[in-house]
Amino acid sequence: MADRAIRFQPSGSRITYRPDATLLELAREAGVSIESICGGSGKCGKCKVVSTHGKQKLSPTNEIEQSSLRNDEIEAGLRLACQTRVLSEGDIVVLVPEGSRRGHHRLLASGIEPAVELAPAVSKVLLKIPPATLADIRADDDRLLDILNSEAAVRANIAPGVHRLVPSALREKSWEATVTLFRKEELIGIDPGDTTGELLGIAVDLGTTKIVAYLVDLATGSTIGTESCPNPQIPFGEDVMSRITFTAGERDGLDRLQKVAIGAINDMIGRLCSEADRNTVDVLEIVVVGNTAMHHILFGISPVHLATAPYAPVVRKALSVNPGHLGIDIYPFGRVTALPNIAGFVGADAIAVLMSSGLYEQDDIGMMIDIGTNTEIIAGGRDRLISCSCASGPAFEGAHIKNGMRAATGAIERVWIDESARKIHLRTVDDASPKGICGSGIVDAISEMLKCGIISASGAITSAPEEGWNVREGSDRKPEFVLYEPEDNGDGIEVSITQNDVQEIQLAKAAIYTGVSTLLKKLGVDCLDISTVYVAGAFGTYVDTSSAIHIGMYPDIPPERIKFIGNAAGSGARMALKSVEARRLADDLSRKVEYIELASEKDFQSEFAKAMFLPHREPDRFPSANRST
Amino acid sequence: MADRAIRFQPSGSRITYRPDATLLELAREAGVSIESICGGSGKCGKCKVVSTHGKQKLSPTNEIEQSSLRNDEIEAGLRLACQTRVLSEGDIVVLVPEGSRRGHHRLLASGIEPAVELAPAVSKVLLKIPPATLADIRADDDRLLDILNSEAAVRANIAPGVHRLVPSALREKSWEATVTLFRKEELIGIDPGDTTGELLGIAVDLGTTKIVAYLVDLATGSTIGTESCPNPQIPFGEDVMSRITFTAGERDGLDRLQKVAIGAINDMIGRLCSEADRNTVDVLEIVVVGNTAMHHILFGISPVHLATAPYAPVVRKALSVNPGHLGIDIYPFGRVTALPNIAGFVGADAIAVLMSSGLYEQDDIGMMIDIGTNTEIIAGGRDRLISCSCASGPAFEGAHIKNGMRAATGAIERVWIDESARKIHLRTVDDASPKGICGSGIVDAISEMLKCGIISASGAITSAPEEGWNVREGSDRKPEFVLYEPEDNGDGIEVSITQNDVQEIQLAKAAIYTGVSTLLKKLGVDCLDISTVYVAGAFGTYVDTSSAIHIGMYPDIPPERIKFIGNAAGSGARMALKSVEARRLADDLSRKVEYIELASEKDFQSEFAKAMFLPHREPDRFPSANRST
Repeated sequence: MADRAIRFQPSGSRITYRPDATLLELAREAGVSIESICGGSGKCGKCKVVSTHGKQKLSPTNEIEQSSLRNDEIEAGLRLACQTRVLSEGDIVVLVPEGSRRGHHRLLASGIEPAVELAPAVSKVLLKIPPATLADIRADDDRLLDILNSEAAVRANIAPGVHRLVPSALREKSWEATVTLFRKEELIGIDPGDTTGELLGIAVDLGTTKIVAYLVDLATGSTIGTESCPNPQIPFGEDVMSRITFTAGERDGLDRLQKVAIGAINDMIGRLCSEADRNTVDVLEIVVVGNTAMHHILFGISPVHLATAPYAPVVRKALSVNPGHLGIDIYPFGRVTALPNIAGFVGADAIAVLMSSGLYEQDDIGMMIDIGTNTEIIAGGRDRLISCSCASGPAFEGAHIKNGMRAATGAIERVWIDESARKIHLRTVDDASPKGICGSGIVDAISEMLKCGIISASGAITSAPEEGWNVREGSDRKPEFVLYEPEDNGDGIEVSITQNDVQEIQLAKAAIYTGVSTLLKKLGVDCLDISTVYVAGAFGTYVDTSSAIHIGMYPDIPPERIKFIGNAAGSGARMALKSVEARRLADDLSRKVEYIELASEKDFQSEFAKAMFLPHREPDRFPSANRST
Repeated sequence: MADRAIRFQPSGSRITYRPDATLLELAREAGVSIESICGGSGKCGKCKVVSTHGKQKLSPTNEIEQSSLRNDEIEAGLRLACQTRVLSEGDIVVLVPEGSRRGHHRLLASGIEPAVELAPAVSKVLLKIPPATLADIRADDDRLLDILNSEAAVRANIAPGVHRLVPSALREKSWEATVTLFRKEELIGIDPGDTTGELLGIAVDLGTTKIVAYLVDLATGSTIGTESCPNPQIPFGEDVMSRITFTAGERDGLDRLQKVAIGAINDMIGRLCSEADRNTVDVLEIVVVGNTAMHHILFGISPVHLATAPYAPVVRKALSVNPGHLGIDIYPFGRVTALPNIAGFVGADAIAVLMSSGLYEQDDIGMMIDIGTNTEIIAGGRDRLISCSCASGPAFEGAHIKNGMRAATGAIERVWIDESARKIHLRTVDDASPKGICGSGIVDAISEMLKCGIISASGAITSAPEEGWNVREGSDRKPEFVLYEPEDNGDGIEVSITQNDVQEIQLAKAAIYTGVSTLLKKLGVDCLDISTVYVAGAFGTYVDTSSAIHIGMYPDIPPERIKFIGNAAGSGARMALKSVEARRLADDLSRKVEYIELASEKDFQSEFAKAMFLPHREPDRFPSANRST
């Protein structure tokens, strides 16, 4: 049997093969989900795999593969799983690259977990304290701090308020007690007996649109729970700028935004703890990352100056405050810590992504892109790092798009158009009937429309009815392209891409590309000099890399140089929660990373205008797009 | 005229003299109030003065003076003002020593003001901050802290919460702002423009019986207001021990005691500020001193372990907390600072008295006694200091005394008995009709009763009716000595000293003397080795030194070695408020001063029993008392 087995990596799944089955079929039977949207015709080109052992037992590359794959991909041994069959018996190993795995984004949703040496800011020490006697009448504070110094080499102060806990904690379990320290400088808690195993922290990624919280066991370093919710500030303003306007224009606007954010965080703390069967007072520290405006609002600091030149933040440095200061429901003498910011629109979340990507320690030039309603980009490496922020808007979240929706059940997330058959292939989240289209679907749709000539390089929907595409006049009297029409008595709703939708995406992608190209120019490098682009954020993880390059959102680099790091802001927050060394790194990076204010760059307007084209007004910048259209 | 003038020092009052007038009369006419209670008969011996210039123009020492004054006093040139007349013309200067000045205690009520170099923990710096521009996009915190470092050489952090104030304060007066610093480490405030002249602090002496608060202008160092009130915890327990019992035995007992104390402090802050026409939010720091139990209760720390062996305090070290932590109504980002304690019954107030006395830097051996319901004693000098606490009880405040009262209008404050005439001379506060007797009156009364043989050395009222004193059987069937009987239709009420009253005072004075003698023994010195006894506290200031020595409360040293320092706890608190150097001193002293637990001393019981005698079971210890009885 072993000589008729095929192994899929990296999952390790193994299946006995049978004649004539394609690798795509065998993989699915083995439980390995490979992307494919064209029904196995080889036209969508999504099911790329590579055989690392026994490739001579496979069918040779056929014509379909030769037209779908680039020359360099063929040279690198890439195959389309739907076109490749096993010809002879023997041991075969097939590697399924990350980008070909269906649902890989779901695995990445909570972000990668970079290894850090466990050294959290909160720590516990078990002490046996010499009892108070008439021969040793030291005060409790001296007695406790003396032994802490002699046994653990820690010279600490007792935090205000914690003194109240000391006398009974010392005496309740015969002068054996566990002290909790913050940064080995401040004694923030004391319990009778040994409680060193109980050490919880929470990392929070406070996004403009979504808040994610992770419960971390700081005694072991493992993440024991994840919760997320929409940012309840959305009704007060969809993007950062409208929320800043709200704080400036509405009575108690800042207080109200602060309050709902803290309420949401407290709800998540409650859910995380109750699911893990722990008490919220056992959570000793929360590390929060967010963009600068979210950061300021959380701390009750007016963000109003972020909105006008020179866009200076009030706070760059890291903050650590008592939970009571904000009304956060954890251990009252614990800490709420925010990582440092870089600039008014490049916040602690960008620092967190940067830390989690490892870009800062790279010898060659790399880039990280965290796509959201505001997209932060940092480019460079070990020697120099430059950042900027692009107002990409909420279009990728489905906002301002006629049939736009979040990536929830029924959202069209993949589009592939069979040009010759005039047939549109769609995939929806959970394979449900279409209810709308999410960001990755729109990017695919526009890329495919461009490939098929339904839209021009300027973004105009130009296809005439006689070309065979379902293009009609929309309610705004502008043309729209119908992507999906439910059949009679069929499920789902009609989904179309309007002229306005195309323009929203053009604005968003132009904003990102202008940021990318400005940073590259500042660094004096060409886009092919970039060794790796780390793409963070949910949308960045879901979107198809080739489509994103094809419309000119990402720089035109070989797709394999693009690495997905998921919710890297959350990963970076967990790194900081688990390691004071990571916090030191965050402090260093917040000082080191330069900031470019894009709007005040001399060429910004013309660069942006050129980037509005699909993929770009200067086609030389996208040689691969030229080749495939 | 000048050659017939007499000057009184240190007041500087000057008057032309006339033949036959006594110095006492001339002094009164010049507005210099000299003590005298015997109607100028020379018998009470209170009106001691010394001529420092022109003494050969005064009448020679007469027989009355020779019997009233000690030999060493006569040798030192002391005269009784009521017996001394001017004989010839010429310039004469008469020094009226502190102890002979009537009402000197009122001047001392707020304590001496030792000079300290003005360097308060809160300070202000005016800064011109480089404005934020597109060419200088630093965050507000970096911008502010950079200039603070370069202009004032201060490397500070911004305190949590203060960030909120920064952006508008920077911009409101064209980037000129005043920052408030705590210990030049933390930026706790920022105002637009120049507010460096506004710098207020409050010092609080939180006594078991009385709370005194001083408003200090920290820009100039001057005290601009004083307020006092009874400690509102009194209804929950008269002395420290009963309050500790209350916190242990009553539901929310600690909270209730804490709340009333804070309420009283807030009331005083309000009154001090409204009288000085300032706002309470302009008060940046409060320095509090009190005994260890008052200290613990103020901070919400259980004092219950102070009451049982080994009487260890929870906190020795100095504390500085945010006002909101306790609910104190001053600038919310200011500080409430408590000086360090020494032991369970020697608190921050003793440190404050010690600082204000200067005893700690004395080359020879001295002693400080702060008399209250608890009396703290510290003996020693530069090389070594030993402290103890004596449970002297509230008898000196008039409590547990049949006709006892506070030193208010109508309280008998001085008693002198003319033995030969069987006549009792009294003086009352404000010269009103007698309503009761206060501590200094009781000590005088017992000293006089002892001199006249109305009580024995054991304290028994032994006088038989035929001896001519108004001794009768009291309601408790024990003898009592009638001090004052209103005449028919006269004002005032009857005041007598009961057998029980005598015993209460014996217990109180024995407690103090046992402390004194134990410390002297530990230091290996004799009482005459003491160069100075610094007496602090209201009662200590009011009580007649000779009477106090005569009943065996103070050690038997020449009365001129006793110095009154008034409310020295308040003085020490003001020193610390005005000077970080004084706080460093307080920290040093709290570590340096040794503590003796009297009750666990081997000889304590027998020493105490011997000290119950008047003046002492071992008469050798009080040679001066032997001489005068």
